Amino acid sequence: MTMLENPSIKYKSFGQINLPDRQWPTRMIENAPRWLSTDLRDGNQSIIDPMDAVKKRRFFDQLIEIGVKEIEVGFPSAGATEFDFISGLVKSGAIPDDVTVQVLTQSREDLIRTSFESLEGARSAIVHLYNAVSPAWRDIVFRMSKDEVREIAVAGAKIMREEAAKRPETDWHFQYSPETFSTAELDFSIEVCAAVMEVLAPTPDRPIILNLPATVEAATPNIYADQIEYFCRHLPNRESAVISLHTHNDRGTGVAAAELGLMAGADRVEGCLFGNGERTGNCCLVTMALNLYTQGINPNLDFSDIDRVIETVEYCNDLPVHQRHPYGGELVYTAFSGSHQDAIKKGFEANSAQNDQQWRVPYLPIDPADLGRDYEAVIRVNSQSGKGGFAWVLEQDQGLKLPKKMQADFSKHVQHMADRLGRELNASDIWEAFQEAYHVQTPDKHFQLVTYEESRAADGTRLFAGTIAVAGSEQSVSGRGNGLISSVVSTLEENFNLDLKVLDYTEHALGSGRDARAAAYLMCQSGDRIIWGCGIDEDIATASVRAVLSAANSAA
Amino acid sequence: MTMLENPSIKYKSFGQINLPDRQWPTRMIENAPRWLSTDLRDGNQSIIDPMDAVKKRRFFDQLIEIGVKEIEVGFPSAGATEFDFISGLVKSGAIPDDVTVQVLTQSREDLIRTSFESLEGARSAIVHLYNAVSPAWRDIVFRMSKDEVREIAVAGAKIMREEAAKRPETDWHFQYSPETFSTAELDFSIEVCAAVMEVLAPTPDRPIILNLPATVEAATPNIYADQIEYFCRHLPNRESAVISLHTHNDRGTGVAAAELGLMAGADRVEGCLFGNGERTGNCCLVTMALNLYTQGINPNLDFSDIDRVIETVEYCNDLPVHQRHPYGGELVYTAFSGSHQDAIKKGFEANSAQNDQQWRVPYLPIDPADLGRDYEAVIRVNSQSGKGGFAWVLEQDQGLKLPKKMQADFSKHVQHMADRLGRELNASDIWEAFQEAYHVQTPDKHFQLVTYEESRAADGTRLFAGTIAVAGSEQSVSGRGNGLISSVVSTLEENFNLDLKVLDYTEHALGSGRDARAAAYLMCQSGDRIIWGCGIDEDIATASVRAVLSAANSAA
Repeated sequence: MTMLENPSIKYKSFGQINLPDRQWPTRMIENAPRWLSTDLRDGNQSIIDPMDAVKKRRFFDQLIEIGVKEIEVGFPSAGATEFDFISGLVKSGAIPDDVTVQVLTQSREDLIRTSFESLEGARSAIVHLYNAVSPAWRDIVFRMSKDEVREIAVAGAKIMREEAAKRPETDWHFQYSPETFSTAELDFSIEVCAAVMEVLAPTPDRPIILNLPATVEAATPNIYADQIEYFCRHLPNRESAVISLHTHNDRGTGVAAAELGLMAGADRVEGCLFGNGERTGNCCLVTMALNLYTQGINPNLDFSDIDRVIETVEYCNDLPVHQRHPYGGELVYTAFSGSHQDAIKKGFEANSAQNDQQWRVPYLPIDPADLGRDYEAVIRVNSQSGKGGFAWVLEQDQGLKLPKKMQADFSKHVQHMADRLGRELNASDIWEAFQEAYHVQTPDKHFQLVTYEESRAADGTRLFAGTIAVAGSEQSVSGRGNGLISSVVSTLEENFNLDLKVLDYTEHALGSGRDARAAAYLMCQSGDRIIWGCGIDEDIATASVRAVLSAANSAA
Repeated sequence: MTMLENPSIKYKSFGQINLPDRQWPTRMIENAPRWLSTDLRDGNQSIIDPMDAVKKRRFFDQLIEIGVKEIEVGFPSAGATEFDFISGLVKSGAIPDDVTVQVLTQSREDLIRTSFESLEGARSAIVHLYNAVSPAWRDIVFRMSKDEVREIAVAGAKIMREEAAKRPETDWHFQYSPETFSTAELDFSIEVCAAVMEVLAPTPDRPIILNLPATVEAATPNIYADQIEYFCRHLPNRESAVISLHTHNDRGTGVAAAELGLMAGADRVEGCLFGNGERTGNCCLVTMALNLYTQGINPNLDFSDIDRVIETVEYCNDLPVHQRHPYGGELVYTAFSGSHQDAIKKGFEANSAQNDQQWRVPYLPIDPADLGRDYEAVIRVNSQSGKGGFAWVLEQDQGLKLPKKMQADFSKHVQHMADRLGRELNASDIWEAFQEAYHVQTPDKHFQLVTYEESRAADGTRLFAGTIAVAGSEQSVSGRGNGLISSVVSTLEENFNLDLKVLDYTEHALGSGRDARAAAYLMCQSGDRIIWGCGIDEDIATASVRAVLSAANSAA
C-alpha cells in the first residue's frame, strides 16, 4: 500500500458542527483552569516500560511540588501492582490535604468495587468512570445499541453511588467520561451524561466532573471547541457539572484544542507534563500553563525550576523532552541567526533601561529566568551568525562593548574561525578570536609595551617616553603630540615609520569598584586600510596606549 | 528570579482582533494549499551545526521526492558558503522544471543584488524580501518610525524590480514578508504590503506572494486566523496576491494556527519537515499534509515511505523526530493498553470484512500502511496490557485464533511472564508463554503422543489405540468413546485415572493450501478447575488428539 491519489475513498472529512452562533471565538481565557495530571495513568500506560512504584512516587512528589491539585494515580483494577501502589500511596500520608487523587475504572461492577477499595482511607478522592460512546465503538468494538451503551454508564454510576455511601469517611467526587466523545454524536453524549447525572444527583456545590475526551484527535481544533460549546449549552443542569477537557495530539493540535475548549466554556484540563500519553500524547500541561503565564495569568503551577521537572519526567517516562518542545526544549532560548541575536541583545538592553517590568525582548516570548534558565544559554554562535551575536557573547563573557563598526571588523575574524573549525563556537572561542585579531594579552607580538612615562609640557603638548619590545628586542623611544594617544602615534611614526591616523576612539570601564579595568578601542587608518585596536588595562591611560600598540601590530 | 505570583506586571495579554463577523470558524479546508519548505533556510539556520553542501543536497533531493514544488534554499547574502551552494544548485540542473527555488534577503541593496546573482541562470525563482514591522522591533531594534520602516520595504521592492528586469531569462516571482506580522498593527502590515505591491505591480496572473509570519507565536491560534482573515479582507487588490502562512510553535499551536489560517483565506503554507525551525520550530509540513489526507484531501505530498523521510531529516538536521510526533513518531501506532488493543483488533477484523475501503480502525486515525509502516508494529505488550493484545499478537505472529475465554486464561500466563521479566514482551515472548502454558511443541512434558491409530466400530463408537510416553516411558493404551475426542479422554481416564470433562471445542486452519495445519482448542473441567488445551498438527484429527493431551498435561 502507499498513499492514495484520492484519499476520500478511504478517509472521510470530519465535517462541521452546526453552531452558527458560536461564541467562543469572541472569548479569551481569563483564569487558570483546574488541572488534572494523568501522567501516572494515561502517561504511564503508554510508555514502553511502565513506571515501578519508586518512579511513580517520584513523579507524584514532583507533581505535588509543581502545585498540581488533582492527580490521576492509576487504574487500580488493572492488576495487583497498580492496586498496591495506589493503596500504599493513600495510606502513606504522602497526599497533602489540598490534593485529591483520582482513579480510573471501566464500568464493570467488580472493577468499580476494586477501585473504591484501593482508595480506602483517603481523605478525598475522585472515582473516574468511563465507557466509549461513539458509533465506531458501538458498532465495531461492543456491538451494542445506544440504549445498551447508556445503560452501561448508568449501571456504573449506580455502583459508584453505592460504594461511596458505604465509605462516608472519604469525601467522594465522581467523574464520568463519555470516551470517544470527539467522534460521537453530541446529543448522544449529552444524553448519556445527563443519565449519569440523574443517578449521581450532583449540585452546584457538589458538582460531577464531566470529562470530554478527544480520545483520538479527529478534526481541526475549532471543531472540538464547537463540540464543547454545544455540550455546555445543551447539557441539562450545566451548573452542577465541571466540564473537563482531555485532548490527544494525533493531528498535532492537542494544546490548541484544549485552549479553544476553555474559551468554549470548559473549567478543567487533563493532560501530562511535556505531552506524554497514548500514541501522540495528551495535551501538554507545561505548555498550556506557561501559555497562560505569558498572557499575564497565574497558572497556579510552578515551573520556576523547569530543568528539574524535565529531569524527573525524562527519568520516569524514559522518553526525552524534544529539543524544540515549547518552554522546556534545549534549543528554545537560543538564537543562531545574526539578526535574531542582534534584536535580542537590544531587547535585553532596553529591558534593563525601562522603568516598568514589562517583558519586551524580541524572539523570546518568556523570560528564561522565570523558568530557572540562564541568559547565557540564549545565544550560540555558528558560521551563519551575524556580528550582533559575537558582540553579545563578548559583552556577556568579557564585558567588552565593541563599537558598532568594530563589530563588523571582528565578525570577519569570527566567520573565519567558524569556517576553519567547522563547528559551533562557544564564548571562549570568541574571546580567543578577539585576542588574536587585536593582539590583546597575547605573547610574541611585534610591538610589545614594556614600560612608559608621560608628561605634559607647559604648551599643552604631551611627551610619551617608553620602552617597547620590537620583535623581542627592547627599544627606548619617545614622541610628542597634543594628547596621550597622538604622542604614542608620533612615537611609532618617528621611530618605526608606521603610518597610523586615528579616526575614532572610545573607552569604557570593565566591571566596577576597585578591581575595575578599562577597555579602549581605536579606529585608525593606515594607508587605505581601516585598522582597529583594543587595549585593556587597570589604568585608563595605559589602556589607550595599549590600544594604539594593538592597532600598530595589525598595521605592521 | 522565579515565576511571578502576578505575571500581569511582566506579561500583557495579547488581546483580541476586532472582527465580530469573522467567517473562518464556519469554513473548512477543502484543498491542499501551496507548500513551501523552508528546511534549508529557517530550518538550517536554527540547528547547532548547519548542513554542509552534501547534506543540503540530500535534503533538497528528499524534498523533490516528496513532491514539494517551492523550496527556500537559503540566504545567499549570508556568506560565501550559502551563495556557492545556491548558485551551484541552480547551475547543476538538479532543479526539476516544475520546482521553483526561493531565496531570502533582507531589504538592503547589496544583499538583494547578491541574492539575484546567486540565482543567475535559474528557469524560475522566488526572491523573498523581508523586514520587521512590529512596534517592538521599530522601537527597540531599529528605532525607526512607521514611515521609515515602510520605506525600507519599498526601497527593497524597487531594487528587486530593477534586478529582475536585468535578467529576463528567468521567470521571477516576488515574495514579501512583513516580519513579526503576528505582533504588528494589522493596518500597518496592510499598508506596507500595499506599498510593496504598488512597486511590483502584481496581477491576478502574476501575483505577489505575501507571507505573513507568526515570527513569534504570541496568542491562541484563533487570533492568528482572525489576523489572516482581517488581512485578506482589507488588502487592496487581494486577487493579485497569494497569501502565505509562516507560523512558529512557541505556544505549541503552530500547526493549529496554520490550519485555522487556511480556513481564514490563505493560499500557501511555509514550514519544515517534522517542525524544524527557529526555537520551537516552524509549522510541521508532514503533520499538516497528513491531517489533510485523513480528511480525504490529497495533500500533493507523498509520505508513503515516511521512515525514509525521517532518516533523511534526522541525518541532515542532527535532531531526532520525537517518539510521539504525529504520524512519524516511533510510538504513534502502538497501543499498550488492553482495551485499546482489543478495539484495534476488532477494527482490523471489521475492516477486512467490509465492502468499502473506508478506514474505521479505532485509535488509529490513519492506516499505518499508507505511510509504509507495518501493522505488526501496531501493538506492543507489557504488564499493563489486556488479553486482547496478547491474542492479537499471537494471531498476527502464529495465526492462532484463541477462543475468547481461553484468552482470559492465557492472559494470566502472560501477565506472569511480564511481571517476572519486568520488561515489554515481544511476539516471540508471547509465543513462548503460549507454548509453556499449553505444552505445545515442548519437550519433557508428562504426556507425550508417540503414535496412534483410530477406528470406528459398527455401533458408531470410536476406538483410540496409541502409544503415549508418560514421563518418558512409552505405554500402549486404548479407550472407546462416541467420537475421537471422547475416546482419547476415556483412554486417559481408564489408563491414568485422569478426570477430564470436555466443555467446549473449536478448531481452525492455520494458513492455507498444501502446507496448512490445524489448531484445536479444548476447554475442559477437571475437578473444580477449568483447563485449556491446544493442539497443532498438519492433520485436523491429530490436532484434536494433541489438544486433549495438552489439557491432560495441565491437569496432571
